[in-house]
Amino acid sequence: MFVIVVYDIEGKRVTKIHKYLKKRLHWVQNSVFEGEIKESQYVIMKNDLKKFIKKNKKDMIVIYKFLTKQYFERTLLGKAKNKITNII
Amino acid sequence: MFVIVVYDIEGKRVTKIHKYLKKRLHWVQNSVFEGEIKESQYVIMKNDLKKFIKKNKKDMIVIYKFLTKQYFERTLLGKAKNKITNII
Repeated sequence: MFVIVVYDIEGKRVTKIHKYLKKRLHWVQNSVFEGEIKESQYVIMKNDLKKFIKKNKKDMIVIYKFLTKQYFERTLLGKAKNKITNII
Repeated sequence: MFVIVVYDIEGKRVTKIHKYLKKRLHWVQNSVFEGEIKESQYVIMKNDLKKFIKKNKKDMIVIYKFLTKQYFERTLLGKAKNKITNII
């Protein structure tokens, strides 16, 4: 499956979540990652991501999950931020 | 159709693109918008967005376009950033 993860996390946890996602997905820009992931990895990742959220803060994460890339079109305007190198 | 727009734009143009997208889509967080849009509006929007990109900068915009919301699942962890109010 393919996922897009966008986050808005306060404080030092922003660095931690970036490092966490960098090991699993491709960095698109700022606080946006995307990539192919297995169902089992997705379940683990979703649970891990919940731990980054502090309930008394304005933290939020949105995960868009697709069973296939077949049904969407991705358009890049400008320069890609990062070469695809950080996948485990 | 449904679109997700993520951007990383330098300087004052970041405020301009935020204002532009706020009139057309829902603000998710930081530099991420999403929403339903007509094909004709999408074509206009894509052309408009190109104008925010400065070639000598590291500006970039990614648009994910879906013909239907049927094939993806959206999970929110934490608090939604914004109520859905800013649609024309």
